[in-house]
Amino acid sequence: MAIEEPHTESDLSDRDWENARVSSAWFESESQDAELQALNSELSQWTDKSDTKRHLHRYRDGSTIDWLYEESLERERKHRLRSQRGARSILLPTLDTMKMWLVIVATGIGVGVTGAWLDVLVKWLGDIREGRCSYGFFYNQVACCSGLDPGEICTEWQTWSEWFRIRSILGQSLLQSFVYMALAVVFAGSAAILVQSYAPYAFHTGIPEIKAILGGYVLDAFLSPWTLLIKGLGLALSVASGLSLGKEGPLVHVACCMAYSLSGFFHQLRHNEARKRKLLAAAAVAGVSVAFGSPLGGVLFGLEELETFSNENDVIWRGFVTSVIAAVSLQYVDPFGTSKLVLFQVTSGSDTWRGFELVPWLFLGVIGGILGSVLIKLNVAAAVYRRNSILHEWPVLEVIGVSAVTAAISYLVVFLRVQSSELVANLFQECDANRGDYHGLCNPVAMWRNIFLLLLTAVVKIGLTAWTFGMMVPAGIFLPTIAIGASLGRAVGLLTQGLYRARPTSWVFSSCPPDPTVRCISPGFYAVIGASAMLGGVTRMTISLVVIVFELTGALSHVLPIMISVMVSKWVGDAFGEGGIYSAWIAMRRYPWLPSVEYRDKGGIAAHVMKPLEELVVIENHGCNLKDLNALVKTHRFHGFPVVQDGQLLGYVIRDKLGVFLESHLIGDDDSNRLERPCSFLHIGSDRSDTLNLSSILETSVLQLRQEVPQELVVNMFQKLSLRHILFTQSGKLKGMMTKTDVVSFLNAHFPHAAALAVPPGQMPYS
Amino acid sequence: MAIEEPHTESDLSDRDWENARVSSAWFESESQDAELQALNSELSQWTDKSDTKRHLHRYRDGSTIDWLYEESLERERKHRLRSQRGARSILLPTLDTMKMWLVIVATGIGVGVTGAWLDVLVKWLGDIREGRCSYGFFYNQVACCSGLDPGEICTEWQTWSEWFRIRSILGQSLLQSFVYMALAVVFAGSAAILVQSYAPYAFHTGIPEIKAILGGYVLDAFLSPWTLLIKGLGLALSVASGLSLGKEGPLVHVACCMAYSLSGFFHQLRHNEARKRKLLAAAAVAGVSVAFGSPLGGVLFGLEELETFSNENDVIWRGFVTSVIAAVSLQYVDPFGTSKLVLFQVTSGSDTWRGFELVPWLFLGVIGGILGSVLIKLNVAAAVYRRNSILHEWPVLEVIGVSAVTAAISYLVVFLRVQSSELVANLFQECDANRGDYHGLCNPVAMWRNIFLLLLTAVVKIGLTAWTFGMMVPAGIFLPTIAIGASLGRAVGLLTQGLYRARPTSWVFSSCPPDPTVRCISPGFYAVIGASAMLGGVTRMTISLVVIVFELTGALSHVLPIMISVMVSKWVGDAFGEGGIYSAWIAMRRYPWLPSVEYRDKGGIAAHVMKPLEELVVIENHGCNLKDLNALVKTHRFHGFPVVQDGQLLGYVIRDKLGVFLESHLIGDDDSNRLERPCSFLHIGSDRSDTLNLSSILETSVLQLRQEVPQELVVNMFQKLSLRHILFTQSGKLKGMMTKTDVVSFLNAHFPHAAALAVPPGQMPYS
Repeated sequence: MAIEEPHTESDLSDRDWENARVSSAWFESESQDAELQALNSELSQWTDKSDTKRHLHRYRDGSTIDWLYEESLERERKHRLRSQRGARSILLPTLDTMKMWLVIVATGIGVGVTGAWLDVLVKWLGDIREGRCSYGFFYNQVACCSGLDPGEICTEWQTWSEWFRIRSILGQSLLQSFVYMALAVVFAGSAAILVQSYAPYAFHTGIPEIKAILGGYVLDAFLSPWTLLIKGLGLALSVASGLSLGKEGPLVHVACCMAYSLSGFFHQLRHNEARKRKLLAAAAVAGVSVAFGSPLGGVLFGLEELETFSNENDVIWRGFVTSVIAAVSLQYVDPFGTSKLVLFQVTSGSDTWRGFELVPWLFLGVIGGILGSVLIKLNVAAAVYRRNSILHEWPVLEVIGVSAVTAAISYLVVFLRVQSSELVANLFQECDANRGDYHGLCNPVAMWRNIFLLLLTAVVKIGLTAWTFGMMVPAGIFLPTIAIGASLGRAVGLLTQGLYRARPTSWVFSSCPPDPTVRCISPGFYAVIGASAMLGGVTRMTISLVVIVFELTGALSHVLPIMISVMVSKWVGDAFGEGGIYSAWIAMRRYPWLPSVEYRDKGGIAAHVMKPLEELVVIENHGCNLKDLNALVKTHRFHGFPVVQDGQLLGYVIRDKLGVFLESHLIGDDDSNRLERPCSFLHIGSDRSDTLNLSSILETSVLQLRQEVPQELVVNMFQKLSLRHILFTQSGKLKGMMTKTDVVSFLNAHFPHAAALAVPPGQMPYS
Repeated sequence: MAIEEPHTESDLSDRDWENARVSSAWFESESQDAELQALNSELSQWTDKSDTKRHLHRYRDGSTIDWLYEESLERERKHRLRSQRGARSILLPTLDTMKMWLVIVATGIGVGVTGAWLDVLVKWLGDIREGRCSYGFFYNQVACCSGLDPGEICTEWQTWSEWFRIRSILGQSLLQSFVYMALAVVFAGSAAILVQSYAPYAFHTGIPEIKAILGGYVLDAFLSPWTLLIKGLGLALSVASGLSLGKEGPLVHVACCMAYSLSGFFHQLRHNEARKRKLLAAAAVAGVSVAFGSPLGGVLFGLEELETFSNENDVIWRGFVTSVIAAVSLQYVDPFGTSKLVLFQVTSGSDTWRGFELVPWLFLGVIGGILGSVLIKLNVAAAVYRRNSILHEWPVLEVIGVSAVTAAISYLVVFLRVQSSELVANLFQECDANRGDYHGLCNPVAMWRNIFLLLLTAVVKIGLTAWTFGMMVPAGIFLPTIAIGASLGRAVGLLTQGLYRARPTSWVFSSCPPDPTVRCISPGFYAVIGASAMLGGVTRMTISLVVIVFELTGALSHVLPIMISVMVSKWVGDAFGEGGIYSAWIAMRRYPWLPSVEYRDKGGIAAHVMKPLEELVVIENHGCNLKDLNALVKTHRFHGFPVVQDGQLLGYVIRDKLGVFLESHLIGDDDSNRLERPCSFLHIGSDRSDTLNLSSILETSVLQLRQEVPQELVVNMFQKLSLRHILFTQSGKLKGMMTKTDVVSFLNAHFPHAAALAVPPGQMPYS
């Protein structure tokens, strides 16, 4: 299933598309489905007979796979393997399983190693914005200064002004800030150019697309090796440019690209969409595992956010294996020589916390929920504005402009200037006389200055992140969110600590130890709470977030407060609008992804929302002939057609299958009589040999429901059985139909900008 | 829904039951369903009109709940709450949620505290089998000897012979062994008497029943406060008696009883079976969390083994909260003053392992898989033998006999004499000069003696466990399995270490450090691997097992070998027969529990397995009258009846609803004319006022499929949609029906002793 260039002959498609957008939601969705199939028009490839039998039905980018069909194919294949004669009946299935595990292990190792080297690359690119190592250009600051005794000052790492031996202070400042900003623009600009020129799908985080793909959406271009390469490179460049973005989400995309590329080597993985998706789920888990150094968090992320395992134990298990292998690989490569998976180690000083601290923590939870919603709304507004303004035409210039502005602002505020990961690591740390003071953060006298700077950092970062997430560079939302939350949390922590210092004997603080040298309030842990709350508000994840945060920080003893803050921020956030930032993007891009929310109807039945018979294109079995069928296949782009006789439903025929069948009976034969030949989808006796029997391609076991079924049951069936469509009948008579796309539009109707960024399939997201 | 004594007027029931057992699987299952409803005969309770409207349909022990119906009730209730006027529309739903969280938090705390005090009780009961504290009878050995300086010898704890000041060595031995055995018999006997007299459902582990209940089975007696009390007390006694059993599984049962009892205080939890089950799932997770000190493992256990969350994030989240609260409570009570959750801390000496060690580890995986299967088969054979022999009549005597034999054998072998948990803790520990030698385990000279004793321990424990698990005492399978596996693993570890000591320069050991004082092979970790493999073989769990083992031991660095051994043992075990020990018990007891295995048909369609129309009891709408309907309700015990007219399906009517309806129209009226009154399930005009309109109780939105649907889709729908029944129609004509019980019998057909232990509902498992 090679990735092809988008079609250019899409005149019809574009017009159809526009029609679809102005029509009602119900029309729209079915039209989209039709459109999704528009790329299917070349039937010629099926004339390769050897492949025809097994893979009659292929998908093009933009369509939705039929899980039931794919799984029945896979079942048949396995059955064939097992029914071989002799030792082959054992050997072949084993080999088959081995291949799958080979891909899983290779993906795990690949993701771990990639993650490690991305870290190294980002660190080096980030460091050369400030200076270089005197004895080698390709050393980063840490590597350059390694091997020193404690207390010794590193003279090998030189700022650019030192390297160029500039004496005047003004000159130093100018040179430093110029290099800082120039390199930011160069990095961000190169990332944008790479993405625009070679792999338009490499922009953004990729998680909404992965959710859609795992749910059955087909978007092969999104997972191509080119995308893998560009996303990796572009990610390093964009992170190093200092734009307000993180590398966590895109790493999940990179992991999926890797699994997809590797699976291409094996026939049975390449040709089964269901199997491929199970692999991708495992890869996504490995991506999270490496991004956060959190193997368990990765598995739970897969369960909660990607919602892909649906309780299939083997898929969970594969995800777990990939996750652990990836984490072990990362640890083995050990990019920074710490031999630790924990990224932001918190000081494990006192394991206890006091009851009164719940007040500031609850406050942080509420703030996290509110600001999370604000960030989502700003981001959606920015995305919609970008789409409809002149900026849409000049994505690279936009990136350059924003990176220049970001660099200029960031250079002025000390907490903004450093890389987000460094900022977070330091905000999570408690003050300790042995560790040195991070930019005066531990100076009790400068409390108000610190609080002001931290709040400023948070506000600026919210604005920058809302704009940046969605530009034409690879960009994750996790790290900036953590940074915003950590700044807020640390500020609240400093304030609480200040209160305690001002009135240590107040009844509020009576639970603090009497010995003033023992720390009562740990502002670093407030930063962890703030980060959790902010993440909760933005992503609306729960359990996987808690696990990720405590694997990230090692703060197992403080899991209860982390849980509480996540819970509160999710509740508060949901009050301002359901759904996290990924759901918002999925709705805006109109991917056919079914959220697993519990849908509640208000007593409505399926008949109210289905597409009624009058609006369906059906095949009437009585009196059908080849010519009509051929015209039908050529005219309509639907996935398939219901077949009826006198109103009674006979079954469903997939358009592609029908096309192949007609092709094989019409090919090389221009006899117009032949076109007039009658055909039937019913089993017919041999007495009417002139009638073409089409019963072999009719699917009779299609799912039918009565139209009185409650809407919620219909939604539930689509969610849990991964259906593509349901037909509604009454006493055997066809009454209507509903497809997955219909259900998605129906469930996403409450999003204010649903479908605002939708692009016709085949067109690139930025074209 | 009070728990009532089982019915005594079950003459009919018993006969039906016998009929059911001899008939074919398909008849059988439907008959069971009928039987399950046999307890429903008193319709009188529904005459309380105030309750009639909302709770027309109640369940008796032994029936299967209708998830869709329960959830629609809950939805309506929530809708009513929200549609209140003014502030109440916000206040009432909040209060509603608060109540649920109250139960969850209380359950978490309750389970944590119960777990902690059970530990204390077991430790004390176990210790007084060997001696007593000189200054107080109620101190256990550790508490008695606390407060000593390192190296000081504890003189306060005295063995019984010391206490009674017996000098002769023969007298000492006789007294010690007599007390040891006598107390074992007394403890085990009391546990059995308690269980038999007060709470027959308190025997065994409880996990199969919990799986069934969470899947929709109704068994309220299993969760009563009495069962809670007896299970807790009996558990402490049976564990302390030294029988080969553990407390982990029963703790899950205790947790569920606790949640059930607490939920009884709140109307809305008491009356909704679906909601109740979501609470029970959270409680079960808390039970595992406390049993193993493993909050994450508990959540994953819920996901993998109980298969109850089915991707509903709020249920996972509640489980996580309960799990963490329970773990924190346990840690807060801190029964042994270690302030650690990790039960069996492994020495974290060298974090590295060598490639050649994979060979013994893989060997352990294979052995674990084989012995796990053997243990399951022995256990099933023992259970079937017990059921069909005279032992069935004398359960208490059996327990007394087995505990005497166990005590006699155990007293002879040093590793068997100690409590299993102490044995496991010591087998997991590496040898360390500072720690002292545990019964000579670290003496290199005694290697062959140790290996022999460990293997003997494993073999004896397999035999004892296979018999004990299923006797009339609370008994878990986890700890004995861990002990068996740890003994085997330690033996293999000692052997490997012996080889290394004999030939340290061999090429095999070239990866060992050259310095002979650095440990190359850690036999303690081999014990962990052995335990994981054995658990994998017995329970066939995967990811949750790995997480539990590494939360249990803290061996995060060795997660890869643990994973490999679990994987291998599961593969090997599955080759000897699918399904873990819990599945085997579910099948033997014939609980209507649908395993979430991926079922693969061999091309079969629903028509082959459904119960065809000819065997169904249907209501013919045309010409029906009250008398016939009344006779139908009185005669048949099915859950409900399909209603047809001229073969066309009109809908489905639940027997209970029909009964209530008839009751209200027949009550206090003996007019026989009235009985002849015609009735109709169709909406009819007012012109025929003599016809009783039953359309209000007809469910028209019942799920229908065509009979050509593949079997696997039917199974899949039952699994994922938690359906109770599916009707099969063709062109609107009823063709057949299939219930959940049918599907369960169908899927469990491969178990050799399926339904061997089934008891009619209402009868106690041991009666």
